[in-house]
Amino acid sequence: MTGRIVISEVGPRDGLQSIAAIMPTEAKKAWIAAEAGAGVREIEVGSFVPARILPQLADTAELVAFARSLPGLTVAALVPNLKGALAAVEAGAHKITLPLSVSETHSQKNLRRSHAEVLDEVRAIAEHLRSLPAARRPRFEGGLSTAFGCTLEGPVPTAQVLRLGEALLAAGADEVGLADTTGYANPTMVRERVTRLREVVGEDCFAGLHLHNTRGLGLANVLAGLEVGVTTFDSSLGGLGGCPFAPGASGNVVTEDLVFMLQSMGLDTGIDLPRLLEVRAVVKAALPGEPLYGFTPEAGLPLGFKQAEAGS
Amino acid sequence: MTGRIVISEVGPRDGLQSIAAIMPTEAKKAWIAAEAGAGVREIEVGSFVPARILPQLADTAELVAFARSLPGLTVAALVPNLKGALAAVEAGAHKITLPLSVSETHSQKNLRRSHAEVLDEVRAIAEHLRSLPAARRPRFEGGLSTAFGCTLEGPVPTAQVLRLGEALLAAGADEVGLADTTGYANPTMVRERVTRLREVVGEDCFAGLHLHNTRGLGLANVLAGLEVGVTTFDSSLGGLGGCPFAPGASGNVVTEDLVFMLQSMGLDTGIDLPRLLEVRAVVKAALPGEPLYGFTPEAGLPLGFKQAEAGS
Repeated sequence: MTGRIVISEVGPRDGLQSIAAIMPTEAKKAWIAAEAGAGVREIEVGSFVPARILPQLADTAELVAFARSLPGLTVAALVPNLKGALAAVEAGAHKITLPLSVSETHSQKNLRRSHAEVLDEVRAIAEHLRSLPAARRPRFEGGLSTAFGCTLEGPVPTAQVLRLGEALLAAGADEVGLADTTGYANPTMVRERVTRLREVVGEDCFAGLHLHNTRGLGLANVLAGLEVGVTTFDSSLGGLGGCPFAPGASGNVVTEDLVFMLQSMGLDTGIDLPRLLEVRAVVKAALPGEPLYGFTPEAGLPLGFKQAEAGS
Repeated sequence: MTGRIVISEVGPRDGLQSIAAIMPTEAKKAWIAAEAGAGVREIEVGSFVPARILPQLADTAELVAFARSLPGLTVAALVPNLKGALAAVEAGAHKITLPLSVSETHSQKNLRRSHAEVLDEVRAIAEHLRSLPAARRPRFEGGLSTAFGCTLEGPVPTAQVLRLGEALLAAGADEVGLADTTGYANPTMVRERVTRLREVVGEDCFAGLHLHNTRGLGLANVLAGLEVGVTTFDSSLGGLGGCPFAPGASGNVVTEDLVFMLQSMGLDTGIDLPRLLEVRAVVKAALPGEPLYGFTPEAGLPLGFKQAEAGS
């Protein structure tokens, strides 16, 4: 548990897709720029879904283009299918993530596709990406959602997670990540599923963890992930977000609390925490009335707190 | 990380001392009985402090006597000094805890005593306890508060924690615990301080961890404690409480979330979680207008959740 941890901010996508208000494009740009300015090195800026499904994210192409202008930032976007992937490539995304729900029931409800249909889509995207020159080819992650349980199916077997992880790579994804879409994960599950998936797909093809704080275990699950070697974690500024298609599945891990934990443990995130805390004001101003979460922002930093220094 | 974990409910003491409302004695009894009925095996029912300082806890003697009537329950109480310890023994407490603040500044503000004066008190209490027949002699814990940092002093050195832990045992305490009064702990600190304190005082003399969730790290810190062998954790139903004398030090670990984490990891707490969740209504009814916290109570238990069964 040493070295650099990558925080992938997913608020502009996962956060904004789950609330009714539509944040103006200029405000999103200010948010993205402020967070990149605080040292966040990867931001998922939106999702290439039809605007009629998620009008909140209709400006994703413009945001990708803008975010690419920020030095050192990895610009990520979600894509549900080949059409979305083509648009993401066109816009210049560095990384695209296609979610595959381990629960087939959730897959049908979320993406309106069976596992087989999603894997067909992955194959078509991979084929297209192979045809591109390397400089224009984004990294392609398959994101295993509901990987720790499903609000519709209940428990989800580890074997199914592993099988679909392998299937994503076989279909042409570069890497696979695990998402606790529903807040069902616990530290024991995280350790076991991450370890076994990394054994199956290989360490280099494990993308990271997307954890929710639905039942308050978000940071404990991050700790379990750290302990088995995970170095990339998704989170959302102010805990904005969740999954609008999985009932009760609210509550992304709060970026501010996550960064506080990592920094206080002496792990380097490259993020300036006081500056990160200031980004809340940008989001707050653009989303009046929308609650922002987080314990560290409310309590403030400890007296004498030093960033990225061992805790004792 | 297997076997039985003891949850020590501190809400009736740590929770109630930090809010202005005074809960009626009969409501406290209903709370204590309901929680014992849900399987909680240790409850800190109050504090033997002068009623003029904490009128909320003026009925502690009556609560100790009542709680002793509940089968299998360990009845704990806080005592600030010899006078309090005498009252606790008289009432029949099974366990008494005297806090010693590692930060001397906090010690002066909280107990209005220096370290030396607190240790004198410990010696006087231990001497009195030795004079009692074994059946009437409570277990005597010295609780090291502000053990991970202080809102008044900032960082608190590990060496000082170890020195005071040894001093408490030398003065006659049976065991020592660590309390993150201020919410400054992180998993790295928890692992290191618990491990080193146990080396110094011996495993049998380490009482457990009292953690706060002030910056959202409560359960991650519990996980770190579990990993280094801690089996007793304090928490507060609905997250009631904190320390009224340490500014900004709000937010006990929420009992319901803690039990959910442990049970979902397959660790046995002896607690029936659905019944525990019902206890909130008892507290809520007696403290109208007082916020209760907790993620699991809001989200509900996962579909297909089974208690004390491995997570995968």
